[in-house]
Amino acid sequence: MIEKDFWHNSKVAVIGGGAWGTALANLVSKNCLDVRFWVRNEDQARAINATRTNQQYLPEIPLSEKIHAFTQLDRVFEGGVNAVIWALPSSVCRAQAKIISQYINGEEIILHATKGIEHGTLKRVTEILREELPCPRIGVLSGPNLAHEVAKGEPAATVVASAFQEVIDAGQALFVTDRFRIYGETDVIGVEWAGALKNVLAIASGALDGLKYGWNTRALLLTRGLAEIVRFSVAMGGRESTFLGLAGMGDLLATCSSPLSRNYRVGLRLAQGEKVDAILTSMESVAEGVRTTESVWEFARARKIEMPITEGVYHLIKDGASVQEMLHQLMTRPNVE
Amino acid sequence: MIEKDFWHNSKVAVIGGGAWGTALANLVSKNCLDVRFWVRNEDQARAINATRTNQQYLPEIPLSEKIHAFTQLDRVFEGGVNAVIWALPSSVCRAQAKIISQYINGEEIILHATKGIEHGTLKRVTEILREELPCPRIGVLSGPNLAHEVAKGEPAATVVASAFQEVIDAGQALFVTDRFRIYGETDVIGVEWAGALKNVLAIASGALDGLKYGWNTRALLLTRGLAEIVRFSVAMGGRESTFLGLAGMGDLLATCSSPLSRNYRVGLRLAQGEKVDAILTSMESVAEGVRTTESVWEFARARKIEMPITEGVYHLIKDGASVQEMLHQLMTRPNVE
Repeated sequence: MIEKDFWHNSKVAVIGGGAWGTALANLVSKNCLDVRFWVRNEDQARAINATRTNQQYLPEIPLSEKIHAFTQLDRVFEGGVNAVIWALPSSVCRAQAKIISQYINGEEIILHATKGIEHGTLKRVTEILREELPCPRIGVLSGPNLAHEVAKGEPAATVVASAFQEVIDAGQALFVTDRFRIYGETDVIGVEWAGALKNVLAIASGALDGLKYGWNTRALLLTRGLAEIVRFSVAMGGRESTFLGLAGMGDLLATCSSPLSRNYRVGLRLAQGEKVDAILTSMESVAEGVRTTESVWEFARARKIEMPITEGVYHLIKDGASVQEMLHQLMTRPNVE
Repeated sequence: MIEKDFWHNSKVAVIGGGAWGTALANLVSKNCLDVRFWVRNEDQARAINATRTNQQYLPEIPLSEKIHAFTQLDRVFEGGVNAVIWALPSSVCRAQAKIISQYINGEEIILHATKGIEHGTLKRVTEILREELPCPRIGVLSGPNLAHEVAKGEPAATVVASAFQEVIDAGQALFVTDRFRIYGETDVIGVEWAGALKNVLAIASGALDGLKYGWNTRALLLTRGLAEIVRFSVAMGGRESTFLGLAGMGDLLATCSSPLSRNYRVGLRLAQGEKVDAILTSMESVAEGVRTTESVWEFARARKIEMPITEGVYHLIKDGASVQEMLHQLMTRPNVE
């Protein structure tokens, strides 16, 4: 039984100093006592502590006085923390978890906010964390949450999914504000796959917008896209109904419509004729969707899971197919439900 | 058994000369022999036949030579037609069906494209048509179909729902092009309620956009809105999974995001402080969502179906509540799934 003021007096580690990690650190600072913010770069840590802003990722947002940035993990975990908010790209997840595991005592609540999967193994982030960290109480936070909009205090909501009710309760206690709502969920598999797979559709959506069509075409793409990511996720053990919610359709809507989304921008630039390698090299932050597309389509093709839009994005990325070709393929294929 | 070329040689009546009726007449003209286009106004009929455009609703779109506009129903149904495409506002549906019933021989396929319900009775359009017309083979066409975009030939898709496979087959034969895909569906109840209820959310979405928030807030509104229209529709006999598809989430996305949608514009103007009566008076075409909101919320309240967004729109329309109040209510209410 958790005491009423437990979380207000808690210490929370936020791992990862990108835009979303920064926004989450600021949110959680409203509901806890002390936020230890782990960032990779010494200059960045010093600047955050000195200026109370993260100039690189969220320059316009003032950060709470409760946030202290560190690069040394022993400082972050000194004396123990009650919760760990995990906001790293999926590509570094396992390696970083191996390092951090020595600082974990097993009593923490761990909530990750990564929308991606492990390349090759197709493991979800909760699976990786469970394998690498000596801590059972793990969950995922995911939803239609463009970091800049959340940071500005625009009304938004998210989903916290876990097999453990205490993880859901902790997520609600730590993140809720009168501008940010938290919905609890038990379908961890569905929520994690929704978060990863929508990045594939965001690339498709950006690419399509390069052709300057209107809402009918985008609605068609996103709806049929949702149908295929549901098909895949249900095959992986997720629940269809999860995709009707904020972590499914909600996130899809926000990510696939906004130029704030990195994956959307990748698609848009592909449509304008840039090469994928050049686009990725030029981006400050990681576009998870490119690697997700490769892993997922190779898996789906081998298992005959029908994913025509994912296949189209794969050809766009790997074979330099044009967006017009992709669209023509999709519009003229036989109907299969 | 329908012959292969049956629909290519068919005669089709299109009832209703608004933007969507006009776009549907043009689509169907590609797949049949003769389109009889019933419009209310003699001048409009004459202008359509003379100029091959519908100046009032789709001025920029050239109409097929196969389309002939009439105001007299006996000319429309002369010698019989094979299909009737019904594109009238819900408010005139029953009265017009009573008039048209004498021209119907019962062998026709009837497909309606109305997104609304009967005020007061909450009857769906297929129910009204079944009551008034001596014809069993009825279906509904519904999806993310902004008329102007379809008319311009942008890629789009729709759903044809019916209890009769031959109605679905006819819908596919009559409307399919390489830019317009047709998905068959048997959940008539879900498709019709989705089409009607999304207009309520379009008003909410337009109103919210008046506050200039970004994609997180819109995604929150639409996703929680979808949850409540699913709740209502399932109570009325529809299926949840229908709402994951084009007639559900797809239509919601297109209608709630585009200033081309009349209901969206109603919401936007409400947010800017205009009164609902003045807005409706100034609009050329019908915004179904206003009456739908009234009927649905009165029904839901009496039966304790939880619909907080619909309730908010109701207060916006009927009581002059502000959008800020509506949003505050929604953000601070207790979580109930």
